[in-house]
Amino acid sequence: MPLIEAFRQLLGDTAVLTREEDLAGLTEDWRGRFHAPALCAVLPSTTEQVAAIIRLCVAHDTPVLPQGGNTSLCGGATPSGQGKPPVIVALTRMRRIRSLDPVNNTMVVDAGCVLATVQEVAASAGRLYPVSLGAEGSCQIGGNIGTNAGGTGVLRYGNTRDNVLGLEVVLPDGSVWDGLYALRKNNTGYDLKHLFIGSEGTLGIITGAVLKLHPLPTAESVAWLAVDSPQAALKVLGLFQASCSSRLSAFELMNAKQIELVLEQVPGRRCPVAEIDAWHVLVELSDTGDAAALAATMQTVLEQALETGLVRDGVVATSEAQRKAMWLVRHSVSEANKKAGVGLTSDTAVPVSTVPDFIDQAMAAVRAIVPGLPFIIVGHMGDGNIHLIPFFSFAEWDALPNRDETAQRIRRAMNDVASSLRGTFSAEHGVGRTLTGEMIRYKPPVELALMRAVKQAFDPSGLFNPGRVLPPSSATEVTATSPTNATS
Amino acid sequence: MPLIEAFRQLLGDTAVLTREEDLAGLTEDWRGRFHAPALCAVLPSTTEQVAAIIRLCVAHDTPVLPQGGNTSLCGGATPSGQGKPPVIVALTRMRRIRSLDPVNNTMVVDAGCVLATVQEVAASAGRLYPVSLGAEGSCQIGGNIGTNAGGTGVLRYGNTRDNVLGLEVVLPDGSVWDGLYALRKNNTGYDLKHLFIGSEGTLGIITGAVLKLHPLPTAESVAWLAVDSPQAALKVLGLFQASCSSRLSAFELMNAKQIELVLEQVPGRRCPVAEIDAWHVLVELSDTGDAAALAATMQTVLEQALETGLVRDGVVATSEAQRKAMWLVRHSVSEANKKAGVGLTSDTAVPVSTVPDFIDQAMAAVRAIVPGLPFIIVGHMGDGNIHLIPFFSFAEWDALPNRDETAQRIRRAMNDVASSLRGTFSAEHGVGRTLTGEMIRYKPPVELALMRAVKQAFDPSGLFNPGRVLPPSSATEVTATSPTNATS
Repeated sequence: MPLIEAFRQLLGDTAVLTREEDLAGLTEDWRGRFHAPALCAVLPSTTEQVAAIIRLCVAHDTPVLPQGGNTSLCGGATPSGQGKPPVIVALTRMRRIRSLDPVNNTMVVDAGCVLATVQEVAASAGRLYPVSLGAEGSCQIGGNIGTNAGGTGVLRYGNTRDNVLGLEVVLPDGSVWDGLYALRKNNTGYDLKHLFIGSEGTLGIITGAVLKLHPLPTAESVAWLAVDSPQAALKVLGLFQASCSSRLSAFELMNAKQIELVLEQVPGRRCPVAEIDAWHVLVELSDTGDAAALAATMQTVLEQALETGLVRDGVVATSEAQRKAMWLVRHSVSEANKKAGVGLTSDTAVPVSTVPDFIDQAMAAVRAIVPGLPFIIVGHMGDGNIHLIPFFSFAEWDALPNRDETAQRIRRAMNDVASSLRGTFSAEHGVGRTLTGEMIRYKPPVELALMRAVKQAFDPSGLFNPGRVLPPSSATEVTATSPTNATS
Repeated sequence: MPLIEAFRQLLGDTAVLTREEDLAGLTEDWRGRFHAPALCAVLPSTTEQVAAIIRLCVAHDTPVLPQGGNTSLCGGATPSGQGKPPVIVALTRMRRIRSLDPVNNTMVVDAGCVLATVQEVAASAGRLYPVSLGAEGSCQIGGNIGTNAGGTGVLRYGNTRDNVLGLEVVLPDGSVWDGLYALRKNNTGYDLKHLFIGSEGTLGIITGAVLKLHPLPTAESVAWLAVDSPQAALKVLGLFQASCSSRLSAFELMNAKQIELVLEQVPGRRCPVAEIDAWHVLVELSDTGDAAALAATMQTVLEQALETGLVRDGVVATSEAQRKAMWLVRHSVSEANKKAGVGLTSDTAVPVSTVPDFIDQAMAAVRAIVPGLPFIIVGHMGDGNIHLIPFFSFAEWDALPNRDETAQRIRRAMNDVASSLRGTFSAEHGVGRTLTGEMIRYKPPVELALMRAVKQAFDPSGLFNPGRVLPPSSATEVTATSPTNATS
């Protein structure tokens, strides 16, 4: 029986999409950068259906592409256009909250649950699911786990990896691993869970997960600081860490150029401090317990920082409206940067202590390519994850000869500096298809060989999301195609 | 050239131990339960020497046994007595602190560093390395990582796994993986680090690590509570979590029998509350910032718990001496239990919400084997990790027919109950050689097959710590030999 017919018998007609108009949202990524045909898309409702789908794909020697909310920034979840067109397994219909245990602080969910839904369900039980990111209204838990999504909660709560206790996975042979453990301690053999987390659909399809919940914070305090340099910002970060420990929930760095663009491009935004010509830090504390104590802590640390001259100026939000206004400036950077011109963003992370060196050296390396180029700088300083964005006006960009090549050289220059500081070229977005060349350039051959051995052990036929994460072992370094302007 | 001669040329004579008296501390575990011969022990000083040792072992087709402080509770680090005697690779001479970065909050260490040394070096830089356990004066970081050691810091800071950012590993082919990343975010392929953590020396030898440091707490508050039942203790845990969030750093449960034994057996101990005939909880808060605020928080939550009737009686330590006295009661349990009789301890963990059910059901299951048997109960309730200890006086134990078989049946009964609640038979001690039979009994075949595929991919010759973690694939369930009386 042909594969598509077998899917129809298994799932019913409405769960098998083959017409181009039905597939449109699945075969192209949300930014419209990658598009390639799929054999079909299937919409299973249960783990058993996913397993049956995989067994059919194996029998027909047909590649499998797991897809969540399709919000990847690096082309990880759309067809590659190489080899046989894949079957897209979209988990949209698998969105049950299977259970929530407020005493164990866990919830068990289908992989297709939307992140925002998970956050809401947790909050309604007085708990926090702490992963939070721009795409939370449409991205799915399975995709979050498959890519080990980061976002704004990492400083305090870690990445997605740190908030998953157990997994259910359909393996490349169609069997199901029920690893839905809800335990804080379990030392019984190799930790398979962490191998699937961040594997971008190349080792199996995640169909369910046990998520770790946290107490819901009841108090927040937000301040905006003007500082002289990234070095000064780093010292202020140290003060907050020493005094506030895990109450420190955000420490975001922006340069003057970034603030200028937000004020220029986004109506209604204003700079919380008088001095735009500085480096800016948004700092947030959050805690259970009462708000007055937290505000007092913020005040104490801020006074310390002002006295020692580390901070030029600082404003503490005294109302919910002020807190929101400060965050709005931070959250407006993507919109502002897109409107203003062309930014060649990077997703590097380096040890936190080397962030100032990274900024200096990477700017110098880029300006050796394009002298005098301005930079937008914005990032999660507390995680060492700085988005350094060489910035062109539209006119400058259009006038540039060899745009693609220049973009490549600029990105490569920044990643080379990150690598020289033992940093990474992909802090939170993953590898997908755009960065497999970087895997060859920056990963030690021993590490690549181990990853290939894992892939071979789990998916010997190579049917799962082929070409993602690991380049073919015969490949030499390839220049990546270039997405622009993504700022998180 | 014979292997031992080759080792001498490589390392010098003093780094190759072959005489029985020199090997005595290495071929037997610290409790004297397991003993078997080794070919020799080698004491490398550098990662390069470890790599050269492994290449020689491979060339001579000789098994390799990595050994840290030899404090395993399940026979994971001494020769098995099966197959060829192994080469013990003891990392005792590799104890350099390679670097400490107080701004990035990381330190890089040789795997042979003793845990207590790491804690001290971190503290002298105003930082906390939070893993803490009974053997910390002699256990080594490499062994901690190889077994994903738990201990008393897990509730707040997680297991060893959660405090390691990067690893250096000599692989079974003698190559070196330099994965010494010191990054908070790094999404570039499969997370190999987590595969080595907890692999008990079966996938390679960990030679170095990047450890995560935390702000050093400056305030502590400890209280002792008397409650009516594990259910009540669970509700009190919920109160503390909601009010104190990550300031809650210990929540230890003990039953009346445990308190009685400590008072009887260990001179100078006294019960902090009047009512011995109750369940007892030691709760600790710790924080940066000032002690008065933390004490006030403790007082507020305690008053809440008293008002709602959840707590019968509660005492907050008002001095360092009182805090120490409370912890001394908790830390005296191993000594007391050893002196008093024979306890058949378990290392189960279950979801925190099911701890009371686990206690009830496991006691009933054991008493179906030995009617009326008393139980010592002590454990890390906040982690769901309860050591349930069926307890015999020496006279009762000596009078017992078929002691080994009874011990086996009792342990099995407790592990069966844990398993039925989706718990684990090894929360923090690992599998080693004693629990491979449990792996077959409790792990789904799909999970075992994945673990075997990983082992095959990393160590195709099977020379690394053979027989540990994974039983041979032909093995059927084997009854484990029985260690007794370990309580952590």
